[in-house]
Amino acid sequence: MQKPSTAPAVHEAEQARYREALNAELGAFLEEQRQSMAGVSGDVAPLMDAISGLVAGGKRLRAMLSYWGWRGAGGAELAAEPVRAGAALELFQAAALIHDDIIDRSDTRRGAPSVHRRFSNLHGDSGWALDPERFGQAAAILTGDLCLSFSEEAFTAVGRAAASGTSARRLFNAMRAEVMAGQYLDVLEEVAGPVRPREDAVQRARTVIRYKSAKYSTEHPLGIGGALAGADEALLRGYSEFSLPLGEAFQLRDDVLGVFGDPLTTGKPAGDDLREGKRTVLVALALDAAGEAARTELEHGLGNASLTLAEVDRLRDVVAATGALESTERLIDELAERAFSALDRLPLDGLVRGALEALGRAAVRRAS
Amino acid sequence: MQKPSTAPAVHEAEQARYREALNAELGAFLEEQRQSMAGVSGDVAPLMDAISGLVAGGKRLRAMLSYWGWRGAGGAELAAEPVRAGAALELFQAAALIHDDIIDRSDTRRGAPSVHRRFSNLHGDSGWALDPERFGQAAAILTGDLCLSFSEEAFTAVGRAAASGTSARRLFNAMRAEVMAGQYLDVLEEVAGPVRPREDAVQRARTVIRYKSAKYSTEHPLGIGGALAGADEALLRGYSEFSLPLGEAFQLRDDVLGVFGDPLTTGKPAGDDLREGKRTVLVALALDAAGEAARTELEHGLGNASLTLAEVDRLRDVVAATGALESTERLIDELAERAFSALDRLPLDGLVRGALEALGRAAVRRAS
Repeated sequence: MQKPSTAPAVHEAEQARYREALNAELGAFLEEQRQSMAGVSGDVAPLMDAISGLVAGGKRLRAMLSYWGWRGAGGAELAAEPVRAGAALELFQAAALIHDDIIDRSDTRRGAPSVHRRFSNLHGDSGWALDPERFGQAAAILTGDLCLSFSEEAFTAVGRAAASGTSARRLFNAMRAEVMAGQYLDVLEEVAGPVRPREDAVQRARTVIRYKSAKYSTEHPLGIGGALAGADEALLRGYSEFSLPLGEAFQLRDDVLGVFGDPLTTGKPAGDDLREGKRTVLVALALDAAGEAARTELEHGLGNASLTLAEVDRLRDVVAATGALESTERLIDELAERAFSALDRLPLDGLVRGALEALGRAAVRRAS
Repeated sequence: MQKPSTAPAVHEAEQARYREALNAELGAFLEEQRQSMAGVSGDVAPLMDAISGLVAGGKRLRAMLSYWGWRGAGGAELAAEPVRAGAALELFQAAALIHDDIIDRSDTRRGAPSVHRRFSNLHGDSGWALDPERFGQAAAILTGDLCLSFSEEAFTAVGRAAASGTSARRLFNAMRAEVMAGQYLDVLEEVAGPVRPREDAVQRARTVIRYKSAKYSTEHPLGIGGALAGADEALLRGYSEFSLPLGEAFQLRDDVLGVFGDPLTTGKPAGDDLREGKRTVLVALALDAAGEAARTELEHGLGNASLTLAEVDRLRDVVAATGALESTERLIDELAERAFSALDRLPLDGLVRGALEALGRAAVRRAS
């Protein structure tokens, strides 16, 4: 018989204190880096501005999961380890977003210019020579690399619990390698998907979300927090049984928002995933269920960067008419159900249980 | 009175054994990563092939400097620490090259296709959809990110001597941040140089080579090796007095090769830096010394990706006629002189002294 969740106010108050500590840690870390960079040249400041801007805006999902993973494994309230590890996770996420936006040619991120766009704007505003786009891209590649290094520097600063040979370090390494592999599979599917067997497309899309998103965004952050607090294998396995289906549901929600989301709440243009040609589970299901004509129309529109709003609307209708939207929502429900019943089985106190349940619900129900 | 260098055969034999151990370490590390990646998907193999291919070809300058830095600070022959740290440095260099080639739009690296070109070729050969260039670039960004993570993973595997708070870790962090800042300044100078005060151009170009190259390629590798073996501040300072001017001379040699080098030995197209619009010290000196007509001609040609061989030849003559080639060669000699007299003052045994002297001579005299 498990302990019931405590009232939301209890974990919300602790989580707010954690966020505060995390923000202070990120602020101090970035301020120190800014000072070192200023010693190189004042011209490097825009890289730091771009990183700070991006880091300021995150939802902190990964850091908060690592925190509750830590607490659920017996770690002390607001200890330094999960604060530093959370900073590392948020810096890693910022680095991934910077490179992701170059890869996807996304001009906006959370309603503001993406990093490569910031730099191409800086080029234009400064009256510099040669190509602003190319400069923007080069600067963003380097800013992402710098942010990746910062992430690792922050993780190493956790100290002994994250040292060489620990299971927290092993998970951190796996997280990085797997998300990059997953992102490659995502990009590969955009180009190879059209000529690969259609009957395996849903399976391929599910592999992509497992590595690109579920393991990265939920499973590994929770596991890293747990491992830092010395969680045993059984607890880490239990964490995965909750967080892996949760992360898949989280990404499926993202896929739905990428086609049907409201630009005002997502901060991304309408139908961005269609223009990108992303072969998500939603799209794979639609192609699978579509008749000949609808499939041709979809295949034709996918990856066309210049789709008009009317064409996006039309493709949305095509996707919905195949029943793929409904199937995806059903899949989200099934995965969420699986995640929450695994959460029920976890040996957690009411505080941690309540916090993980609230984070999980928000992840699968969100509109942005 | 310093001990004289031992005969070359002595350090050459030890260095060959180090290279062997380093190559074995890199091979085993990458094989393990390849197996993990295969667990994600067979489709990820090309990322590992690209990294392995690049890592196989390096001159190992950074690893060898770290090794002799270790030995000069009293570290034991062929110990695990400098082998692992050397692997980390070579992996970092591979990551930097992958992203550098995207930034510079270089299609070749050491005479073979660069990583983004490998992937655009794979796209073409496989009959995939959408744009091969864009796919190549996306895949190379992710491959570079993966390789950056590997580098850090290898460095952490050094263990206690490279743990959080050690001076080796501090240098490793500084190395990464500074090289990225330096590369940004390099890219910035290509676009901002033409509209910034010409009288500061040589100074700006020297800042670029200090961070992009001298600190990264020579000072920090040597220092990291020393720090791993517990070198004190005085020894690390002495190492810097040798390695910083050496690294500047090394990069100036690179700049000369970038304009005047033979494609057959450099593995890069003739006059690559001119097409790129690189504002090196050589180019800054030429612009500074040129008359009105020559300056206009140079400014016009710099950054023009479609320069013909005849135009490259003509620009080379313009650069040489300003006396900038001679001035650069003189600067290389001065810096090398400064480096080697600092080496003379270092408290090293004949073995390490001989090895560092040979590496230094090769770095400034090389033709590729």
